[in-house]
Amino acid sequence: MPDFTDHLKPRYDGTATLQAERDASTINVRDLANHLLSRDGFLQAQDRVLKVLSNEKLFKKDQQLNLSRPERYHLGLARAKAIRRIGRTQGWGDKEYAMAEYLNDEMSPYFLHMSMFVTTVREQGSEEQQAYWMPQILNYDIIGCYAQTELGHGSNVRGLETTAKWDPVKKEFEIHSPYLTASKWWNGSMGRTATHAIVVAQLLLPKKGSKTDDDEYQSHGPQPFIVQIRDTKTHQPLDGIVVGDIGPKYGYASMDNGYMLFDHHRVAKSAMLSRYAEVSDETGALNRRGHPAVVYGSLTFVRGQIIMHARLILARAVTIAVRYCSIRRQFKDRDSTSPADEELKVLDYPTVQIRILPLLATTFALHYTGEMMYNLYHKTRQTIEKGDFGMLAELHSASSGLKSLCTMLAADGIETCRRAMGGHGFGGGSGLVGTNADYLSKPTVEGDNWMITQQVASYLIKKMTHAVANLDAPPKDPTDELFQFYLKNRAHRIPQTVAHDGEYDDQAIVDVFQWRAADLSYRAYHARVVEKKPWTKLMIQLHNLSRAYSEQILVTTFFNSFHETATSLSGPTPGVLKTCFRLYALFTLDAFASSFTLTNAVAPDSIYSLSDAILDLMTELRPHAVKLVDAWSIPDWLLDSALGRSDGKVYEELYDMAHRRNPLNRVTFNPDWRSDEIVLGSGDGGRHILAKL
Amino acid sequence: MPDFTDHLKPRYDGTATLQAERDASTINVRDLANHLLSRDGFLQAQDRVLKVLSNEKLFKKDQQLNLSRPERYHLGLARAKAIRRIGRTQGWGDKEYAMAEYLNDEMSPYFLHMSMFVTTVREQGSEEQQAYWMPQILNYDIIGCYAQTELGHGSNVRGLETTAKWDPVKKEFEIHSPYLTASKWWNGSMGRTATHAIVVAQLLLPKKGSKTDDDEYQSHGPQPFIVQIRDTKTHQPLDGIVVGDIGPKYGYASMDNGYMLFDHHRVAKSAMLSRYAEVSDETGALNRRGHPAVVYGSLTFVRGQIIMHARLILARAVTIAVRYCSIRRQFKDRDSTSPADEELKVLDYPTVQIRILPLLATTFALHYTGEMMYNLYHKTRQTIEKGDFGMLAELHSASSGLKSLCTMLAADGIETCRRAMGGHGFGGGSGLVGTNADYLSKPTVEGDNWMITQQVASYLIKKMTHAVANLDAPPKDPTDELFQFYLKNRAHRIPQTVAHDGEYDDQAIVDVFQWRAADLSYRAYHARVVEKKPWTKLMIQLHNLSRAYSEQILVTTFFNSFHETATSLSGPTPGVLKTCFRLYALFTLDAFASSFTLTNAVAPDSIYSLSDAILDLMTELRPHAVKLVDAWSIPDWLLDSALGRSDGKVYEELYDMAHRRNPLNRVTFNPDWRSDEIVLGSGDGGRHILAKL
Repeated sequence: MPDFTDHLKPRYDGTATLQAERDASTINVRDLANHLLSRDGFLQAQDRVLKVLSNEKLFKKDQQLNLSRPERYHLGLARAKAIRRIGRTQGWGDKEYAMAEYLNDEMSPYFLHMSMFVTTVREQGSEEQQAYWMPQILNYDIIGCYAQTELGHGSNVRGLETTAKWDPVKKEFEIHSPYLTASKWWNGSMGRTATHAIVVAQLLLPKKGSKTDDDEYQSHGPQPFIVQIRDTKTHQPLDGIVVGDIGPKYGYASMDNGYMLFDHHRVAKSAMLSRYAEVSDETGALNRRGHPAVVYGSLTFVRGQIIMHARLILARAVTIAVRYCSIRRQFKDRDSTSPADEELKVLDYPTVQIRILPLLATTFALHYTGEMMYNLYHKTRQTIEKGDFGMLAELHSASSGLKSLCTMLAADGIETCRRAMGGHGFGGGSGLVGTNADYLSKPTVEGDNWMITQQVASYLIKKMTHAVANLDAPPKDPTDELFQFYLKNRAHRIPQTVAHDGEYDDQAIVDVFQWRAADLSYRAYHARVVEKKPWTKLMIQLHNLSRAYSEQILVTTFFNSFHETATSLSGPTPGVLKTCFRLYALFTLDAFASSFTLTNAVAPDSIYSLSDAILDLMTELRPHAVKLVDAWSIPDWLLDSALGRSDGKVYEELYDMAHRRNPLNRVTFNPDWRSDEIVLGSGDGGRHILAKL
Repeated sequence: MPDFTDHLKPRYDGTATLQAERDASTINVRDLANHLLSRDGFLQAQDRVLKVLSNEKLFKKDQQLNLSRPERYHLGLARAKAIRRIGRTQGWGDKEYAMAEYLNDEMSPYFLHMSMFVTTVREQGSEEQQAYWMPQILNYDIIGCYAQTELGHGSNVRGLETTAKWDPVKKEFEIHSPYLTASKWWNGSMGRTATHAIVVAQLLLPKKGSKTDDDEYQSHGPQPFIVQIRDTKTHQPLDGIVVGDIGPKYGYASMDNGYMLFDHHRVAKSAMLSRYAEVSDETGALNRRGHPAVVYGSLTFVRGQIIMHARLILARAVTIAVRYCSIRRQFKDRDSTSPADEELKVLDYPTVQIRILPLLATTFALHYTGEMMYNLYHKTRQTIEKGDFGMLAELHSASSGLKSLCTMLAADGIETCRRAMGGHGFGGGSGLVGTNADYLSKPTVEGDNWMITQQVASYLIKKMTHAVANLDAPPKDPTDELFQFYLKNRAHRIPQTVAHDGEYDDQAIVDVFQWRAADLSYRAYHARVVEKKPWTKLMIQLHNLSRAYSEQILVTTFFNSFHETATSLSGPTPGVLKTCFRLYALFTLDAFASSFTLTNAVAPDSIYSLSDAILDLMTELRPHAVKLVDAWSIPDWLLDSALGRSDGKVYEELYDMAHRRNPLNRVTFNPDWRSDEIVLGSGDGGRHILAKL
């Protein structure tokens, strides 16, 4: 309906503002985008798949925030299915399917089928089992999920309560949930979608000589079983199985995270995935074969993917914040004397910069470490296939520490960006409501961010113990090298100064991060190995060690990229990336100053000048901010943010969403408290809404 | 439907676990609860209103997370209206209505009517205007809202774009939105509910001698107008007004935050609230009268309320986290040698304690400061009514700095608690999904948390300038006293040590917080007044000053409560509260260590022993944690959290929510990608969900 607002314009033109920002920097956006995202033809796949999905009405994101959680699952399933059908028509491969998930930007009810279910069958199924299951899986004839976590146990997999008891007479397993807390819980795709599940259960085998008595069974730890859970025709749970969706959560509205219990449910012997372990028909004993480290490899891969994804999710929030804060104006400069002065862009306030620009720098820090992890993973994979498991521990430790650090940086960064955008940051037009809620799962899943830092610390203590005893052995990896260097130099350490009067010592920056990590490793080693302190008492210290070690990886890897960026990028870009390096590093150093002074990494007095150095670096970075986020190449369709639109039409879009696309505005209400009618003229006395409670 | 899961029990009994926790502490919960919450009969009102609301089906919180945002507004309006009807029947007064809002725990569509609308008419309406409007308002015959913030301006009220132009011929105002960004935006209760609005607009009066030409008008700044916006019968917007709801946001689902534009909309002269300013019929000039500081008073009151509310919202999150983490077990002690050892309660891990227990301590820090603000507000109010505005600046500064600090502590604290609860913290059973999303508005509303710290710094710079010039004048308030002490002692400051080998110096703790605040004030004064640095360049430093100053208030006020708690509370409680004081203070000191060493407040070397002291304090506090949260007396009905239930039936409730109360489990889906049917057997080809996009 036309009205007088149709031709109103915002006070300032956002499009012109962003154009002026872009004109003020000579960064070549296309070159930088290619530098960041050309691996595996990412940018081309993005263009290709975006064109297809953005033309399908089913994938319109417009009304998502107006749907109820049950509706979001309906929509999620409809989209998951449509992606398969579209992919067949378009001839998509794995790369395009993955891109479709990324652009669709919600957890697919098929997600676990495509990830843990297929991976587990492929990695842990015998050849026979793979021959039987893989065609059905790849064809999506069955839909699978991965049922490991339970109501009572997540992190501690050895504590799982579900049992799989071997019946030596019938040669079957009996899967059972002895407690309520044995209920499988959180398992994605299981609530309403899956027909099959990998069920991880404690394998119970009769003790030698015994046949039936419960007391005579012994647990051989968690093992994976492939189990049909729903009828192929009716999609109802099979007898002896209770399964459903656990209900609304913070995010993941489209995903049917589920619960499942078993009542002495019997499955054939072939249900147990038997590439690495099999129960003997004759003896009832467990025969193990092969190296179980492959399971770690799979977890490491998932963590690696989360690390690589962190840069893109943080880049999204930073893109929105940088663009909006370049357009948003509020207050004149307090010292302004001319009435003609315009209000300042809020990105020109240091109090806004200090929240957004270090995060902009962090996206690049995350980038180079993500790429490093990708390479390390594939290199390790190759050596493992040659039977050499030597690199696995380093990879596992790095992936644990970085998963913890990077997801925390990204999750906290999203919220920091949101708050920096003031009132509109709280609105649906921020584009961060769903992103934020979904991403908040990441600090918890695949190893809780605090819990897994113990694995890093444990590894580093082991490495330090080895280094202390073998000071001159040839180093096997960068950690050995660092620890040997530390041990040889700790007696005569000179604390460094990293920034002085606008001069930066990049090599010293790397040194202080490495030194601090090494020193904290030594302290942990000393407390645990020499003083024999209880592990639990040390846990906070160990957590801080993991963080320091992982920060050292980010800083070192970023520094190591200089050679590559200097040769492959032109104009001001290599210099601007160096500014990002310094800003990320100095911001981190400032935030954890006492850890750097405690470890003799930096000179205590040099800490106090960091805030001026950080201000200077932000001033250097500021003119390039819009072009730097442009380089991350997040399509408007994915951003789904009025504030972050690449054309700067922030206010036009916010208004359009409110005035023309908000379904609540199509209803007229009765505000009179004396009446129990809610919709004016409906006379329903509120029964409609009461029925939903 | 009965099934085999009906009689399953969790592996560990949560009720017995919580009972054992309670038995292990001799804190008298009822006494502490009264100490905290007896003002104005809070606890009695809570009991009374809880009994009524929890028996009404309309107020069941059970399915809230399954409703769409439009449905949440329907429900919110139904509840707002029902509360009025119930209140009449029950004979409720203001206290009970406020309690009903607190327990109902969602933003009421009537909220702005009850707060800013009535307050503005009462404080800024002339006697005649009050006589006309107040009866209609108090009777809810009209529903009002407060339309100040616009699409383009929030913090900078002077920058508002809506105009109210005086027509000297017709003696009317013409309210107009010249730009899209002039649209009123965010204004609560306006989107669908309100019939009337206070519209804040730039008052344009003809320049002397002029009559009509636009260029001849001059702005006299923002003024409030009371304007009917919707028809009393049809509830449709009046001609020349476009008004609606802005759509989904982070939280506030039940609230109709709105937008509104005017097309040369004419209102009578009487629309302008004229207690302090009136346009003269004859001359067209603005006559101002009285002291506009009363407007500040009202903003200060709102900020004060936010500060007092912060303790209760944080207490909610901490209650949930403490109870759940006392019940949740995961992993045996890594150094355990006995197979009989049970898994540890996660609250016994220092890595969980360090996230939750300092926040538990913070609830009490927030408490004493909230009470102090309450008293300061009422004392200031009294002196203002005697015509003495001398205390207002101190109150305004304290309320700004504390609003910023306390809402940040609470908002971040909720999320910290949530993450500390691992997987279940991400679930709907945490009870934090709605709380978190709603509360995230608080760091932004009523003065953005970063923006308003400038007001604090500005005040402190003024005070320090005065102190420097008047070193021996009698101090007018604690700030004067502190600044004079600082200036007299800065030449011979001896940095303090606050904790040494398990001994704490509480007086020294207060001293270092005060010294740091004074020193940072001096640095800000020096940079701005002596060195004349640009304000904008100083903004981060000024923000940090405000934080330090506000932290000093929290610490000082907590310390000052010792006398009262020592005499009014028995058993271990006064000692435990002292532990809370130390934990809050030392945790804060540790987190901002370099600010304390920079200012010579503490001896640099003493920083490194803080982490051991914090560990010790947490060990002291741990046995009392459950009883301390019990004392906050948050009813289960308000907590609405499976994890936080006072009876410890965490797992039973999570399972019940999923298995028996999740509507998604009543629908059977078609997971086959080849079919576009979503609900199995419906044959609707996904049309149902497509229609919603």
